[in-house]
Amino acid sequence: MKPVAVVLCGCGRSDGSEIHESVSILIHLDRVGLKYQCFAPDAPQTEVVDHLSGKPVAESRNMLVEAARIARGDIKPLSQLDVNAHAAVAFPGGFGAAKNLCTFATQGANCTVRPDVAGVIRAFYEHKKPISLVCIAPVLAAKVLGTAAGGPGCSITLGGPGDAANAAAAMGATPITKAVTETYVDEANRILTTPAYMCDTGPHGVFTGVGKMIDALAAMLR
Amino acid sequence: MKPVAVVLCGCGRSDGSEIHESVSILIHLDRVGLKYQCFAPDAPQTEVVDHLSGKPVAESRNMLVEAARIARGDIKPLSQLDVNAHAAVAFPGGFGAAKNLCTFATQGANCTVRPDVAGVIRAFYEHKKPISLVCIAPVLAAKVLGTAAGGPGCSITLGGPGDAANAAAAMGATPITKAVTETYVDEANRILTTPAYMCDTGPHGVFTGVGKMIDALAAMLR
Repeated sequence: MKPVAVVLCGCGRSDGSEIHESVSILIHLDRVGLKYQCFAPDAPQTEVVDHLSGKPVAESRNMLVEAARIARGDIKPLSQLDVNAHAAVAFPGGFGAAKNLCTFATQGANCTVRPDVAGVIRAFYEHKKPISLVCIAPVLAAKVLGTAAGGPGCSITLGGPGDAANAAAAMGATPITKAVTETYVDEANRILTTPAYMCDTGPHGVFTGVGKMIDALAAMLR
Repeated sequence: MKPVAVVLCGCGRSDGSEIHESVSILIHLDRVGLKYQCFAPDAPQTEVVDHLSGKPVAESRNMLVEAARIARGDIKPLSQLDVNAHAAVAFPGGFGAAKNLCTFATQGANCTVRPDVAGVIRAFYEHKKPISLVCIAPVLAAKVLGTAAGGPGCSITLGGPGDAANAAAAMGATPITKAVTETYVDEANRILTTPAYMCDTGPHGVFTGVGKMIDALAAMLR
C-alpha cells in the first residue's frame, strides 16, 4: 500500500495545523498499519500568533519548517507531493487550514485556495483516491469541489449549523452534522470528514472521531 | 479529583517537549476522566532548532509561549504550580526535557536541574503524589531523587541499556528495561515511566505506552 500524504501548514491551532488533530491522524494511521508521509507548503505562514496571549506577533515563520515539529523532521515540500505515489491524502484542521492553505478565515465562501493545495485536492479526486479532512479543513474540499466552482459538490462535516456550514453551502457543498466522535463518509466522492475541534470537546473526543475517520479510510483502501 | 499538572518546556522534539508524547498524555488523561492543567517555565528555551534541517538557528523562543501551542493556550507559568492543587504531575520527553529543564543533554550524570523543576519533583515526592515521566524525562527524577543527591533512589525506564541508563545508574537510580508499549511503576516512590521515543517506534507505540502509564496513574489515584 502506498503511503497516505498528510498535508500540514505550521504547528499550532491559531496560525498553523492544530496539533492534537495532526497527531491523532498520525497515531491512527500507524495503528491501522497505513504508512504516511507529511508535506507542507515551503512558504511563510500568513501570520504568527502567540498562543499564550492569543495575539499576532511581528515575526515570520515558514509552514514547512514549523510543521516539521509535528512530523519529527520527516516532511517534504508540498511541491513534491505526487498523487501517483500516495493512496490517499489527509488534512488536519487548525486556523492554518483557513488562513495559510486558503483565505476562508477572512473571506468565507469568497475565499481562494492556494493553487498547490487546490491542485492536490483535484488530483486525488480525479484519481478516485480518498481525501480526509478534519475540523475546518473540509472547507478546502467545499471550495475546490463545490458546485459553485463547477465541481461535483460534496458532503462534509463542519461541526453543525453555523457560519462555516452556511459558507460551505454557498460554495456548493452539503454540510452534514455529526458529533465529535463520529465521521461522515461521502462514498461517491471518496471524501471522509470529522468535526474535531469545531465541536466543544477535549482531546479524547478529537482522537476518537479521527480514529473513526481513519478506520473508514482503511476500509475504503482495502 | 484535583487536576494532573503537565509540565511542558516548548513545542518540538529537538528543542522543547516532544509533541506526540505530550499530546498522548493529554488524550489519555482526558480518556480516563482526569482533568489536567499545563505548565511551563516562563523563560527562554536553551536553543531553537530548525526541525527540518535539524540545525540550531539564531533565534530566541520562550518555553511557556511555545508550549501554549500544545496546550491550545490553556497553560500557566511553572512558578504558579502549587502541589496542593494537583493530584499528580506528568513530564513528557523531548530534548527540551534534557536541555531546558536540566542540563542532561550536555552534562549527563553531572547535570543540574532547574530549581523550579527540582522543587516540583521534590514537592510531589514529599506529598506522596504520583510523578509520571516519559522518554528521557525520567532523568529528572534520577537526578533529584537519586541516591547520589541524598535521595531515596528510584526505578525508571529509559529505553534499555545505553548511555542514558548508565547515567541514571551513576545518579543513583535503577534503570528498568521496558518495551515501548509498556510502563514501569515504582510503587514505593509512586513514580511511573514509559520509554516512548527512547525506543525505535512509530507514534502508535508511544501512544500505547503512555496509555498504560496513565491507566496505572488513574489506578494509583483511585
